[in-house]
Amino acid sequence: MNHLKKLSRAQLKSYSKLTLKKYRQIERMFIVEGERSVHEALSSDWEIEALILTEGSGSLIDYSGYKHIPIYKISEIELKTLSDTVSSQGIIAIVKQKDFPLAKLWENLPPHPILVGLDDVSDPGNVGTIIRTCDWYGITAVFLGGNTVEIYNQKVVRSTMGSLFHIPVITEIDIIDVVKEARSRGINIITTVVEKGKPLPEFQPPEKSFIIFGNEAHGISPAVKELADSRITIPKYGNAESLNVGVSVGIILHHFCMSRA
Amino acid sequence: MNHLKKLSRAQLKSYSKLTLKKYRQIERMFIVEGERSVHEALSSDWEIEALILTEGSGSLIDYSGYKHIPIYKISEIELKTLSDTVSSQGIIAIVKQKDFPLAKLWENLPPHPILVGLDDVSDPGNVGTIIRTCDWYGITAVFLGGNTVEIYNQKVVRSTMGSLFHIPVITEIDIIDVVKEARSRGINIITTVVEKGKPLPEFQPPEKSFIIFGNEAHGISPAVKELADSRITIPKYGNAESLNVGVSVGIILHHFCMSRA
Repeated sequence: MNHLKKLSRAQLKSYSKLTLKKYRQIERMFIVEGERSVHEALSSDWEIEALILTEGSGSLIDYSGYKHIPIYKISEIELKTLSDTVSSQGIIAIVKQKDFPLAKLWENLPPHPILVGLDDVSDPGNVGTIIRTCDWYGITAVFLGGNTVEIYNQKVVRSTMGSLFHIPVITEIDIIDVVKEARSRGINIITTVVEKGKPLPEFQPPEKSFIIFGNEAHGISPAVKELADSRITIPKYGNAESLNVGVSVGIILHHFCMSRA
Repeated sequence: MNHLKKLSRAQLKSYSKLTLKKYRQIERMFIVEGERSVHEALSSDWEIEALILTEGSGSLIDYSGYKHIPIYKISEIELKTLSDTVSSQGIIAIVKQKDFPLAKLWENLPPHPILVGLDDVSDPGNVGTIIRTCDWYGITAVFLGGNTVEIYNQKVVRSTMGSLFHIPVITEIDIIDVVKEARSRGINIITTVVEKGKPLPEFQPPEKSFIIFGNEAHGISPAVKELADSRITIPKYGNAESLNVGVSVGIILHHFCMSRA
């Protein structure tokens, strides 16, 4: 890898600012860490600004197909200014942010969409895991509303395990507006409640569904709750007060996909 | 709260060492943070060494029923030496570790047990979330084997959301020995595989089940795999390479409990 260009100090400084939300918003770029996530970014239609490798990364990706992307080498110490984890595996991509226009999504909706909305989900690991789960279940699109953590947060990106590059994640939306638009298009609005909702196993998923999950501590906001057509509850057999929101998403999407298959 | 004793410097220093695994193992105590988790610890039969509050904690717990437990006040700055999070809500319990003897568990096994084993699950948030999920589904016991992260790790404890105090979590075991013992007692050993296992919806849960989940990156160890009676797979409808292990646990336990109800 000695043929690789060295990343200049100025470039490193500029990219390391992308660890901060403020600069991600100004520069409209973000950091992707680790072999798998970088591989998924490269295989997608997202635009890669640069690839950055440490000498010892031992990356197995064949970069010969990506000659148009500048590849730089950096030291392990320099890597630490870009990565907030020990698991970057010495490989990082700087990727351009991408918008999914809402109008285009509505126009191209499949006949039986399943949409997932997050209303103020605050933990980055939860948001990333939910996007990964939505990708597993082939969900049409994910909406991040309320004060849901920023999609380009490094921990969110890492927790998606590359799924960020597979499905549309729509951000900077007013979840109420989106819910109203969905309703006007005949899509059923479904929320989850810890108790007294329709038990999940008895719930027959509608042809067109928009399932909304709320904040880890406070659940769905009252304004969204009011617009819901159905409220579902995952039956409890033991003593925990609640389930983790990421786990709930998995259980509910499994039921939805199963019931349709 | 002015009547509360001030925690001495020596005591604070001693308790703050419990943020390290080494000292947790020597002292056989651990730190529990936050209103809900402390409440669950107090309501359980686990022994509380001390309660520690900041002046501004505004804790709603009625401590009058716990007169035998020493309650101390500390400053916000002192709190930081005990808590690795901003969400301790100014309330901490120092709790004595508790062993669940394996022999006792086998003797008192219910007629239709569901046991869950973790074989080398490394992320503290995953382990905590799995214990919480097992509590929701009323699982008989959870076994932490392989190099699964230590149960008294602060992030594990926090992620259990108090469920640690509800169900037996058995640690310091050789998962192979436990699996063999379970088999000898007529318990079915079930593992999960990302593909080519029996599809979960078609899988009829046995009367006595021991479901084992493996490492986030490498899955189940070959030695455990060999002892499995069944391998199940969660059907995929999209593109993610895998599901988060905590999410998989939720989907599978939901299926097991549902199929029996």
